[in-house]
Amino acid sequence: MGFQINTKVLRDAVELANNAVSRKTTNPILSGVKLYIEDNVLHIYTTDLQTGFHKWLKVEDVDGPFSTVVEQKVFLEILSSLSSETVRVDLDGVVRLTGGNSNFKLPIMDPEEFPALTFDVSGNAIFLDKNIVSKMIDKVLFCVLKDSSPLSRNLNSVYWDFRRSGFLNLVTSDSFRLALSEIEVGEENLLSPFLLSLRSMEELRLILSSSKTEKIEIIQSGSQVLFNFEDDDLQLIFNTVEAEFPDYLAIIPQSFITKIKARTSDFLYIMKRMSIVSGKEEYTLMNIKDGLIVCYASSPDIGEAKEEIKVEQEGENIEIAYSPRFFREALEKIETVEFEFNISGEELPTILKPLEDNSYMYIIMPKRKA
Amino acid sequence: MGFQINTKVLRDAVELANNAVSRKTTNPILSGVKLYIEDNVLHIYTTDLQTGFHKWLKVEDVDGPFSTVVEQKVFLEILSSLSSETVRVDLDGVVRLTGGNSNFKLPIMDPEEFPALTFDVSGNAIFLDKNIVSKMIDKVLFCVLKDSSPLSRNLNSVYWDFRRSGFLNLVTSDSFRLALSEIEVGEENLLSPFLLSLRSMEELRLILSSSKTEKIEIIQSGSQVLFNFEDDDLQLIFNTVEAEFPDYLAIIPQSFITKIKARTSDFLYIMKRMSIVSGKEEYTLMNIKDGLIVCYASSPDIGEAKEEIKVEQEGENIEIAYSPRFFREALEKIETVEFEFNISGEELPTILKPLEDNSYMYIIMPKRKA
Repeated sequence: MGFQINTKVLRDAVELANNAVSRKTTNPILSGVKLYIEDNVLHIYTTDLQTGFHKWLKVEDVDGPFSTVVEQKVFLEILSSLSSETVRVDLDGVVRLTGGNSNFKLPIMDPEEFPALTFDVSGNAIFLDKNIVSKMIDKVLFCVLKDSSPLSRNLNSVYWDFRRSGFLNLVTSDSFRLALSEIEVGEENLLSPFLLSLRSMEELRLILSSSKTEKIEIIQSGSQVLFNFEDDDLQLIFNTVEAEFPDYLAIIPQSFITKIKARTSDFLYIMKRMSIVSGKEEYTLMNIKDGLIVCYASSPDIGEAKEEIKVEQEGENIEIAYSPRFFREALEKIETVEFEFNISGEELPTILKPLEDNSYMYIIMPKRKA
Repeated sequence: MGFQINTKVLRDAVELANNAVSRKTTNPILSGVKLYIEDNVLHIYTTDLQTGFHKWLKVEDVDGPFSTVVEQKVFLEILSSLSSETVRVDLDGVVRLTGGNSNFKLPIMDPEEFPALTFDVSGNAIFLDKNIVSKMIDKVLFCVLKDSSPLSRNLNSVYWDFRRSGFLNLVTSDSFRLALSEIEVGEENLLSPFLLSLRSMEELRLILSSSKTEKIEIIQSGSQVLFNFEDDDLQLIFNTVEAEFPDYLAIIPQSFITKIKARTSDFLYIMKRMSIVSGKEEYTLMNIKDGLIVCYASSPDIGEAKEEIKVEQEGENIEIAYSPRFFREALEKIETVEFEFNISGEELPTILKPLEDNSYMYIIMPKRKA
């Protein structure tokens, strides 16, 4: 029982599953990749129970039924190391890999124990443009809370908020700041809002980065969402995170006491310099007065930094403090030459966004003044 | 009291000192960079007591005497972050850095506490070609023992063995393997053999990688060695390691029971594949018989690998075991299309070396057969 396939084709397919495999698990089958052949098509499955990966490839010289599970990491390392153009994979109590003069025997796991990746494809479906989705994800992913413990699952996720007005918002927050990217999808192109875990999003981003599919189909069915990459012969099946994302719309400030326009790169470099001396404090004070911002940061061991920058200012003069890192990380994502920096008050959320572009924005909380 | 200088010139100079600074030290002055001006020349010093760095630069607009010490890491970070082409450095109880609209104040340390970097330049001197020294170091540095504890200082070093026959050998060993590179320097161009610590060698390699000096002067004086990079206005002053390097010449086997010639890259890839399945065991068995080598490795969790390769063989058939990693790391440094693989016995050192090139070689101990 076995088949033959181009080494690089199989290698690339197994690598794409990287973020849908459990690395540290008490259940070894979740560290595996399931290989299953039907009608000369090899199906490749991995899952960590949250993210499911399914890709299929044409194979040659198929000989008998084939269904097994091997460890994904070792399988990928071996495929990456083979010098031969094609590889033969055979199953007889072990998996035998043969490529050129190289012969490997790998222990197998029971394919019956591998979790079934099932999905009811009759659910609601919409199509989104690959490049737009990629860009939206890039704008918000860095604000996801990194802590994946059960209590913070709602922030260890990206919120896909389909809004009745015909917009899709991707929203992330680590509770100190929030990132939002928005696109109009049309009122007829809506799903129910859902949460995808950071791990699921990383797998989605990996697939998007090499996908040939221009229009990605997204199908929703109960607590599952399927992303169909038709031209890649690939599907991702996500179990959504059952938790409640904060009411982010209530957090977005609507009125401002001070509105600033400034050059993005100039401000970015200032925040980098403030970061150096602020050390672990992550604190920079801004004195905003009559079109001039004086930034100040210090820590006893490292030293002091002071810098001024001319800006366009509307509204009140104010002294306000921020984390220079949060400021910098938002500015790094802003692509326009100038940006808007809109202040609601010393202890109210501030908006940072590209000038004359409403497709993404960042909200950061000021720091309590020392 | 201060001076002005091109930001990038100062930044690059301070960065070159990176491996001659103590990062973890109970003596804070060793984490510092000393800045000292005499006759419109800025002298930059760092030392970790083993490796001393000294570079000098022309400066402008010098105003009064200048001698101080600031933390090297912070100083470098700030210089790297400045947007302005020139920077002004002033001293008045703190160091003030001014570049464009950026102003920094850095705490200072007492320059009198900074260890003096003195060297008696009247010692023996020789000149070595920069590119040759760089290449010799590259061939041996990976075999240095990484453990820097007092008992293993002699192997946490590179042995510069000047031999009366007019050769310089650079030799390293982690006690399981040995690397040697050799060059003829002439009988009139000899110093006494010395040991330089891995940290010292890393600083030397950093300087060599960007040096403009073609002929490097090496001066020896007692337990110190000075490397003079004349065209870079830079000197490294090393305290040699006071320890005894093993009698490596006695280890180099002179007679062989089996001599193999094989293609370097083919063998390298085989060793990579053996590494995957051998896991932490780092064990591969070779059955060498009538011009064919069959390699075999396995571990219970990961699987088995078996591979054969045709070679040119002289001498006995033998079954012998090696660490596939040691084998691979040596082959990665061998630049010839074919290599020599010379076996003295199952429990005696094996030589790996480029074919028809005696300028470098690797000695690895076989493993006891399982």
